[in-house]
Amino acid sequence: MTSALIVAAGKGTRMGPERDKLFLELAGRPLVAHTWRIFDESPDINEIVLVVRDGMQTVFGDLARQFAFRKEFRLASGGPERQDSVWNGLAALSPTAEIVAIQDGARPCASMELVRATIEAAREIGAAVAAQRVADTLKESDGTHTITRTIDRSRLWSVQTPQTFRVEIIRRALAAVRAQGLHVTDDTAACELIGQPVRLVEGLTPNPKATSPADLPYLESLLRQRPGT
Amino acid sequence: MTSALIVAAGKGTRMGPERDKLFLELAGRPLVAHTWRIFDESPDINEIVLVVRDGMQTVFGDLARQFAFRKEFRLASGGPERQDSVWNGLAALSPTAEIVAIQDGARPCASMELVRATIEAAREIGAAVAAQRVADTLKESDGTHTITRTIDRSRLWSVQTPQTFRVEIIRRALAAVRAQGLHVTDDTAACELIGQPVRLVEGLTPNPKATSPADLPYLESLLRQRPGT
Repeated sequence: MTSALIVAAGKGTRMGPERDKLFLELAGRPLVAHTWRIFDESPDINEIVLVVRDGMQTVFGDLARQFAFRKEFRLASGGPERQDSVWNGLAALSPTAEIVAIQDGARPCASMELVRATIEAAREIGAAVAAQRVADTLKESDGTHTITRTIDRSRLWSVQTPQTFRVEIIRRALAAVRAQGLHVTDDTAACELIGQPVRLVEGLTPNPKATSPADLPYLESLLRQRPGT
Repeated sequence: MTSALIVAAGKGTRMGPERDKLFLELAGRPLVAHTWRIFDESPDINEIVLVVRDGMQTVFGDLARQFAFRKEFRLASGGPERQDSVWNGLAALSPTAEIVAIQDGARPCASMELVRATIEAAREIGAAVAAQRVADTLKESDGTHTITRTIDRSRLWSVQTPQTFRVEIIRRALAAVRAQGLHVTDDTAACELIGQPVRLVEGLTPNPKATSPADLPYLESLLRQRPGT
């Protein structure tokens, strides 16, 4: 069984006060409903776990009805940090789940092909992440605003989601993170900690995350290009 | 005197065959005309030099008439590499030019405030570049598709244009590059070569460059938000 774990517990602070970015309307539906739809429609996904903030359970149930999502889903409770939310979500997976694709709730443009490619890579080597080669020219600063050097970007990738794992591997990796009292900002960093190789799966279409209001017109334009939106 | 140097000599290969990205229509005018307009309207810019491919001189003259650009401009010839085009453009500046703001022709969303901020920083320390902090999680690969480590992005910036300099400094820096037979992909890298400090000027609004067809809807949405477009 292959599960999707959608992390939808953050409120996001860069959108301004009192705005929950996951519920911003884009191309006719709330942002997080676009993300959910990818996995509801993906033939590679058997169940969906959404990690949400306490108090939001009803809202997500309403979303499922409003958009007629058909796949089985469960809700888990968000924790103080992303890694805690993922931990809680993993605990809510079906006992027969072998592979889990972890997705940022605010990243609504991942293609089903990309989801599938990360699942295949995770089956093969245990861990995989959607990624794109760094195209920008990068500079390192001295900690203020003066350049110290140009970074060689030839081996650099920016990583996104899905981040997809054999379930027992990501459980073991996050347990190690927690045991050591560390903080990781993405799930593959936990794998690095236990020496688990992670495959970079190159995404060929834009797969941005909503982080600030400036991102919204771009996301809107991408979502409007998707079939059936 | 402060000059703008717009590098508009590349054809861009990632847009597909036979498409000159600079002349793609976005928000009612060709891409490069949006870029040109920033400097035509900026109160901080006294003259404009456009570096163009041979054979394109008439087209750029027509653009100036069509969009009623009012500021004095000159055309210079593109070279085989970006650094050669910049070199040729510098040779075409007015002899009284003290500061030059070098802009990618395919980067049409730089704000006039950002142009001004780079000019002020270049006056102060000699060289400045529009930049944004890296927000993506970055990984280094082993050269294939396996992650070797997470990159500490806390001191990383992606650099854009304008890249703005005291004219004598960028001339000296590029002369050093040419004398050593080096290739640089951006003008601040030439400054690093001669030990010239470069100030990172943080841009607060998106300032992307058109590189592939996937970028066009985003650029269109940004340009449509600009006043007077």
